[in-house]
Amino acid sequence: MRNFTIALDAMGGDFGPHISLPASYESLQLHSNLVIIIVGDEQQINPLLKKYHLLEHPRVKLMHAPETISMEDDPVSVLRHRSPSSMLIALQLVADGEADACVSAGNTGALMLLSKHILKTLKGISRPALVSALPNNRGGHSYMMDLGANLQCGCDTLFNFALMGSVLCEKVEQVSSPSISLLNVGRESNKGSDEIKHCASLLNKTKYINYIGFIEANELFDSPADVVVTDGFSGNIALKSYEGMGRVFIAQLKKAMNATWYSRLLGKLLNPLIKNQLKHLHPDLYNGASLIGLRGIVVKSHGGANIEAFTCAIEQAIKEIQWQIPTSISERLASVLAERDCLLHE
Amino acid sequence: MRNFTIALDAMGGDFGPHISLPASYESLQLHSNLVIIIVGDEQQINPLLKKYHLLEHPRVKLMHAPETISMEDDPVSVLRHRSPSSMLIALQLVADGEADACVSAGNTGALMLLSKHILKTLKGISRPALVSALPNNRGGHSYMMDLGANLQCGCDTLFNFALMGSVLCEKVEQVSSPSISLLNVGRESNKGSDEIKHCASLLNKTKYINYIGFIEANELFDSPADVVVTDGFSGNIALKSYEGMGRVFIAQLKKAMNATWYSRLLGKLLNPLIKNQLKHLHPDLYNGASLIGLRGIVVKSHGGANIEAFTCAIEQAIKEIQWQIPTSISERLASVLAERDCLLHE
Repeated sequence: MRNFTIALDAMGGDFGPHISLPASYESLQLHSNLVIIIVGDEQQINPLLKKYHLLEHPRVKLMHAPETISMEDDPVSVLRHRSPSSMLIALQLVADGEADACVSAGNTGALMLLSKHILKTLKGISRPALVSALPNNRGGHSYMMDLGANLQCGCDTLFNFALMGSVLCEKVEQVSSPSISLLNVGRESNKGSDEIKHCASLLNKTKYINYIGFIEANELFDSPADVVVTDGFSGNIALKSYEGMGRVFIAQLKKAMNATWYSRLLGKLLNPLIKNQLKHLHPDLYNGASLIGLRGIVVKSHGGANIEAFTCAIEQAIKEIQWQIPTSISERLASVLAERDCLLHE
Repeated sequence: MRNFTIALDAMGGDFGPHISLPASYESLQLHSNLVIIIVGDEQQINPLLKKYHLLEHPRVKLMHAPETISMEDDPVSVLRHRSPSSMLIALQLVADGEADACVSAGNTGALMLLSKHILKTLKGISRPALVSALPNNRGGHSYMMDLGANLQCGCDTLFNFALMGSVLCEKVEQVSSPSISLLNVGRESNKGSDEIKHCASLLNKTKYINYIGFIEANELFDSPADVVVTDGFSGNIALKSYEGMGRVFIAQLKKAMNATWYSRLLGKLLNPLIKNQLKHLHPDLYNGASLIGLRGIVVKSHGGANIEAFTCAIEQAIKEIQWQIPTSISERLASVLAERDCLLHE
């Protein structure tokens, strides 16, 4: 396979280059044809290159970015000023064909707006969507989208999500004809808003999507769906509720195990088994949300990601490069567009 | 205290009278001034009265209802036909002043529509809201609303929820000036839809509500908010995500404990401590969602509730009778209405 290049916004996230640089090193070790362009403040990065074994690395380039977008910056004002930030320069490298994908742990809203304006969306897509993997009880994982990039979504947008998610899952996960569900407040066909019900009927009619019906949020782990589609507000709420409940549960378990001297002993003995059983649910494994619907590959890492989690985000970008996700989505869109327009105007 | 009366839709839920009757017995034991009117199919209920110690009970009345609304019935068609179901008759008893509250484990949508049409909403409220308690990490619980009765909510509706939740919490939980949060995709004031941002600014301005800002779904357990306000779609998603994640964790924990002979032994020894630590999170304790904004008290039990959980739902109805929730909300609404109208048209 030919070399491929990732433009890394090294400054994004809570820990900036202290996470993105060691994660880059891990990924370079795993992929002999990976090239990384580290984009960020030279003054901060240069002293760290040696520490993280990246000094004079044959597959590492450094590109200076005088500015950094903070988590608090207002995305709209970031877009207006277009200052030469590490995020903007990394995206520009993808737009210019210098890199095959951009990975950033920075401000999600800014990444969304800058991506849309620098890379542009695919024909038929008005805004990119944020999609990520979630573990399921079948020992694998499902995709969920949108996770917050599009707070309110009409029927047309949800339909496009289903289509894009289907292509992403088919290619990256090598699932033939992935099953698609819409997240709803009930399974029955009369449940939910008019937009959702309308979208369900459109999905039922198209031959390009294997739509299997509504699912409720308590079934997210048990459902047979490969891709769960919802608006960005609900997707964000569902994802964060899971995270929150997981954290509460672990904290309560630790408390129970620390209650008495013998519970501490029992807990110590049981801990490796519990950790092993729960490791499949660990959010670090699923770090790396893709912004899809763009004419380029952009992967967003969680701002608080550790090295392992950031490496997973780079891995996601690599898979999307290998499977040429934007081209694949674009081709499927072209096939569906005519059919969908007919359905929408029936 | 004078006697008070609950009209019980004995047929609702997955197990009908096999749960609602023994739960009634438990509640009658706990409250010497409680009277229960059991509404349902006499032919099914009569043979069970003896089994559940309710035969010739001095504080039990039986009222025959020839029909039962199933979980699959379409709420709109239930409303149109208004057949003499146990749910409809129980609500009518409240409307007629024969009972102080109605408790049902039946079809939520039907209960919502029938309640609204039989009991009517309070002045200034267009639709009732569904509110329930959720455990928090402070060892207590918070209220969350709406949980699915109002899927899409504008600024005005969210504002009313905040007001009603505030009164409910103040009275039932005896919290002075309860803190109110809006559920959102971020804590920053620029996050979320225009409706949410507008509602936040209105809540900030009113002296009747102790608004403390946005919270994210991963903070639902940790937040200082006494009442979390959101639209019915998101509330339903958040609540069910918690339930789903809790179930997954328990299942995984059991698997870990059953992995080897010694893990089974360790698990058996640790189990009582873990159960004790987690019991505070058990959904049965929080069963009983109130439909508020009506001119009467209606509490919805989970359809799959067991006896203990159904008893909690009756307990919630008793508290609302004691604190005269509809009157309290109505009085607060009257005080706020003028102020709110000024704020809305600023």
